[in-house]
Amino acid sequence: RLVPRTGQGTRDHPPAQAALRERLLRAVVSCFKRHGAAAIDTPALELRETLMGKYGEDTKLIYELQDQGGELLALRYDLTVPFARYLAMNKVNSMKRYHVAKVYRRDNPATTRGRYREFYQCDFDIAGQFDPMIPDAECLKIVHEILSDLQLGDFVIKVNDRRILNGVFDVCGVPESKFIAACSTVDKLDKVPWEEVRSEMVGEKGLSPEAADRIGEYVQLHGGLDLIEQLLQDPKLSQNKLAKEGLGDMKLLFEYLTLFGITGKISFDLSLARGLDYYTGVIFEAVLLQQENEHVEELVGVGSVAGGGRYDGLVGMFDPKGRKVPCVGVSIGIERIFSILEQRLKASGEKLRTTETQVLVATPQKDLLAARLKLISELWDAGIKAEMLYKKDPKLLKQLQYCEDTGIPLAAIVGEQELADGVVKLRDVSTREEVRM
Amino acid sequence: RLVPRTGQGTRDHPPAQAALRERLLRAVVSCFKRHGAAAIDTPALELRETLMGKYGEDTKLIYELQDQGGELLALRYDLTVPFARYLAMNKVNSMKRYHVAKVYRRDNPATTRGRYREFYQCDFDIAGQFDPMIPDAECLKIVHEILSDLQLGDFVIKVNDRRILNGVFDVCGVPESKFIAACSTVDKLDKVPWEEVRSEMVGEKGLSPEAADRIGEYVQLHGGLDLIEQLLQDPKLSQNKLAKEGLGDMKLLFEYLTLFGITGKISFDLSLARGLDYYTGVIFEAVLLQQENEHVEELVGVGSVAGGGRYDGLVGMFDPKGRKVPCVGVSIGIERIFSILEQRLKASGEKLRTTETQVLVATPQKDLLAARLKLISELWDAGIKAEMLYKKDPKLLKQLQYCEDTGIPLAAIVGEQELADGVVKLRDVSTREEVRM
Repeated sequence: RLVPRTGQGTRDHPPAQAALRERLLRAVVSCFKRHGAAAIDTPALELRETLMGKYGEDTKLIYELQDQGGELLALRYDLTVPFARYLAMNKVNSMKRYHVAKVYRRDNPATTRGRYREFYQCDFDIAGQFDPMIPDAECLKIVHEILSDLQLGDFVIKVNDRRILNGVFDVCGVPESKFIAACSTVDKLDKVPWEEVRSEMVGEKGLSPEAADRIGEYVQLHGGLDLIEQLLQDPKLSQNKLAKEGLGDMKLLFEYLTLFGITGKISFDLSLARGLDYYTGVIFEAVLLQQENEHVEELVGVGSVAGGGRYDGLVGMFDPKGRKVPCVGVSIGIERIFSILEQRLKASGEKLRTTETQVLVATPQKDLLAARLKLISELWDAGIKAEMLYKKDPKLLKQLQYCEDTGIPLAAIVGEQELADGVVKLRDVSTREEVRM
Repeated sequence: RLVPRTGQGTRDHPPAQAALRERLLRAVVSCFKRHGAAAIDTPALELRETLMGKYGEDTKLIYELQDQGGELLALRYDLTVPFARYLAMNKVNSMKRYHVAKVYRRDNPATTRGRYREFYQCDFDIAGQFDPMIPDAECLKIVHEILSDLQLGDFVIKVNDRRILNGVFDVCGVPESKFIAACSTVDKLDKVPWEEVRSEMVGEKGLSPEAADRIGEYVQLHGGLDLIEQLLQDPKLSQNKLAKEGLGDMKLLFEYLTLFGITGKISFDLSLARGLDYYTGVIFEAVLLQQENEHVEELVGVGSVAGGGRYDGLVGMFDPKGRKVPCVGVSIGIERIFSILEQRLKASGEKLRTTETQVLVATPQKDLLAARLKLISELWDAGIKAEMLYKKDPKLLKQLQYCEDTGIPLAAIVGEQELADGVVKLRDVSTREEVRM
């Protein structure tokens, strides 16, 4: 006999975790619905060709299925590429959808930091040709609403634009062929200091030291509307078409975010690059700030809890005619948020109920199983959440103990006397008060 | 460019289907919660060794992952084996849980009859050492509640017991080594007539013609308490230890089902065998009866919509010490029920809303985007489900048309006059009534 276990980087959710997760997902989905999104569901199994060439270096993390005859399949890596495939396949030009489902990555699991090989993603995306920055602003509003609702403590939402980054690389003398490499190096600035990023640029990525230094001056900048204005005046950037477009849209975005009243949590941050290849415009990432309370250590390293951006070219990659559908979307990092809420619940000592049972049907004497079965059947048929112990003659104490252990608030007791009188004794488990009814 | 598509036997659920599915799953889960079950979640990826040797012939339908270094993995085939693995791994002796999740089978898809390679299962199981037939009766009550709630039309729940079947085989002269083969042949009686089953028994399975004829006399019987009593008096069966045990428990089960008031839909049917190896006691299957209405043709072939049984040995297969945890459970065949509800919805012409938006924020004149953004932000913050068009200056007619297309009942209109007066005009989209507030 083998020792039963789950695969590396995957885990079960026992009832207490499943109940907390249900509560968390409900909060996220209710925000998505508040913004008018419809749900879709796509298969966890996609054709391998659908996923290939979409994730850059991370393509190696895709789980492939064995060739057992028939089509070559793989497990989805995210919900964005399947969404783009869905839009192209069904020739949908405009859609606001959410999708909550598991995705799969053959990553090195760092389970202590909430990184798994199978995990939930909660995505909200707006597809369609619209006026600039209106859907983009709504995505940021959604991140703001969810992080505020969940009371995760202070946070900041970093915003940048791939067009601004590419403009910066261009004016710093980076050849276009090295934009993506430069981008993925800049992306590390949230974890390592500039000096290390600089040496990777010059060493591994082969940029000139001068170009790296010039990039360094830009990507260490962050601020708000003032910084946007400053860069719009920048003698070099203002001459670059891509950067100018990006900065113009960034200004518009800040205008809309001001109307939403959320600029206090937004930081225009030129070091934000995001890993995935498919972004084409605005990108953003929400980061929890360190809390000055007892949980400091656990929270360190949790980092990003939401991210997203604009990907105007992805649907076109699937369309037989190359027809483009601009898209912008956000993914909520539910696993990390879940880890935080779980630690907080543990620290508070609060016990989450794992069932919703309202009443336990109990008997104080022997040979009353038939009475219990009749009563519980009536309760179920009336829509009342009810349980009973699966013993013929359980002791009353055991039955009441079960209520206390599982948080059932009421016990409906039928004894010989109650049967004779045609009543039920309803007992409040915590106060021990009883009424006959 | 490739033509975008989903893999064979898998499918997307566009919003209308996702909304119907959500409604259906909510009904099923609310029944499971009414019976006091807690949720658990297990990975879709299990170690290959966990799944092997549990499904008999159907093991060949398991999707295996490619060996990309590391552990050998496979996609779960059902939710029962992962549940047993969970119980053994966590040394849980007693648990009532539900699990709604997708499972995977490399089957020949018959998508017209609601058979897919990726599909949802909705399982409710009771694990633990209890007095006989009390949890088993609850599983049948659950099937009865769900099928009644969903108003799927008339149905019957067939019940049998593996011990009775094995007893029948024994007294008919089948050697024990051929019980499983005989069982899987008997299982076909719901699709083909007895003559064909008989010839498979004698031909492929190598039973003697006399044994087959004797089996035929038993497995064509079905009835209620009267049949149980008759078989308990049967000169041969009454001498068989296993059959006697099974019949005794069946009598007890009918007693409990009488108290639940549901025997009208229950049929003790000796032809019911169920495919899976792991059943050890009571087995059951719910079948929809043909409806005498316009949907006759579509409903034919839908057949089984729920099934389950007792599997007392499965957890022990995973326990390092072979410790047994008796289990009984039911799986609701949500995909078939979904197909029926979908056809019914189509026939009724009813249009299911795919979003829950309560109000569209609209403007009748140009240059009022800022007013819309401010108002919608206030609505979202107040928890109201609101949308607006992502255009700077949409026409009022287009905005109202959007409400009609998507079923949004109200439009909150801010024009120049309303802005000047500090009010909002709330319009009922269907009646066209307006109030200023």
